[in-house]
Amino acid sequence: MNLILVESAELRCDGAVTLSGARAVHLIDVLKVTPGSRVRVGVVDGPIGEARTVAVEKDRVTLQCALSGPAPARPPVDLLLALPRPKVMRRLWAQLAALGVGRIMLTNAERVERHYFDTHVLGEACYRPLLVEGLQQARDTRLPLVSMHKQFRKLVEDELDGLSDATVRLVAHPGRDRALADSIDRSAGRVLIAIGPEGGWNEFEIGLLEARGFERISMGPRPLRCDTATVALLALVHEGVRS
Amino acid sequence: MNLILVESAELRCDGAVTLSGARAVHLIDVLKVTPGSRVRVGVVDGPIGEARTVAVEKDRVTLQCALSGPAPARPPVDLLLALPRPKVMRRLWAQLAALGVGRIMLTNAERVERHYFDTHVLGEACYRPLLVEGLQQARDTRLPLVSMHKQFRKLVEDELDGLSDATVRLVAHPGRDRALADSIDRSAGRVLIAIGPEGGWNEFEIGLLEARGFERISMGPRPLRCDTATVALLALVHEGVRS
Repeated sequence: MNLILVESAELRCDGAVTLSGARAVHLIDVLKVTPGSRVRVGVVDGPIGEARTVAVEKDRVTLQCALSGPAPARPPVDLLLALPRPKVMRRLWAQLAALGVGRIMLTNAERVERHYFDTHVLGEACYRPLLVEGLQQARDTRLPLVSMHKQFRKLVEDELDGLSDATVRLVAHPGRDRALADSIDRSAGRVLIAIGPEGGWNEFEIGLLEARGFERISMGPRPLRCDTATVALLALVHEGVRS
Repeated sequence: MNLILVESAELRCDGAVTLSGARAVHLIDVLKVTPGSRVRVGVVDGPIGEARTVAVEKDRVTLQCALSGPAPARPPVDLLLALPRPKVMRRLWAQLAALGVGRIMLTNAERVERHYFDTHVLGEACYRPLLVEGLQQARDTRLPLVSMHKQFRKLVEDELDGLSDATVRLVAHPGRDRALADSIDRSAGRVLIAIGPEGGWNEFEIGLLEARGFERISMGPRPLRCDTATVALLALVHEGVRS
């Protein structure tokens, strides 16, 4: 935790907040706060600031927060991801939030098994704390927006323009060896990257994406596991955007 | 598994091999081979070729392999990694092999807990199958060389030159915002990237690395978990080398 995130509903009107659970444990055991210690805090989807430790009890810590100014900018990358296996998806949530994603769209595809959509890993009760964990790691407050789409065609044809205002659209697909750096116009605002299932997009899907402005990029000749590929591609897109 | 890897000791002199265990299960259940089916095979640290399925039994598959030519080139990236927690290291092995690493040097550092070195995750019996799994994913045969170093200073000052012939040395360290792409001379052969522990290298360690030719690079303002950072940096270095 490089930042303690609190929910705006937890903050009292005078800016004080009393934390228990994982955040209190972290404050007490790792940061070893005592009354007077200062720590970095942020509000989910709100500003980042500093807090003074007011009281430390057995398993509760009270902080007096000084938070002002705007929230950090939304990360300049959106993700359209063919839903991976629940075990893999569970591992990805925190990493996605840490790497920085404005919106996560999880979609069906031919090579996605339908029962993947039935997992509790797609419930907000499961993924929200994992996203918050990733934000606390990366010192961000911007919770990624999350949506799920069981109809790929409807998503791409009807819904995508309303969900992401990215001006650059890329799709990871083996076969065309154009390096990613060459596909990102640094002057452009946001990038939407589409990452297919373990077996790849099928021809219909890739055609649909290309018809909606997605440009194929390749990560080279090594096929990677979905989670490795996702982390790798997000790192490359971020590097491309900030270069 | 995008490639079935066999050990040279498993191959009979006529090029036949009988597989059981995970590889047989994969051949039977996923690739659904029958006698006559052709599959992609490789020999650990040897060539890649094709095999014809000769026999399929309940839990065993016999392949006749046609393997010739040289082994693939060793990946152009070496890794010096401050040993992460055993649980994280366990998850990393296959991903490192899949992303492509010539040599993995695991090192101690001030912010590495000494007991991390006592885990079975550092035993060859544990990590070798995980590396092979990563190679099978990425269609490579080159098993990363692995070494462990409990004395950081001895490693960097006395051993490193003999272990890695990389001409570009980079160290990930927050603070200096030079993008990675600008630090890789594309004409250079190999890159060695050093990645510190969760809390970062200390000043002594970073000084020692800089004195031995490591150039600081940054991945931007977001601190990442060790495993996320490692995958992200290896992706960036590979992209830099191949661009």
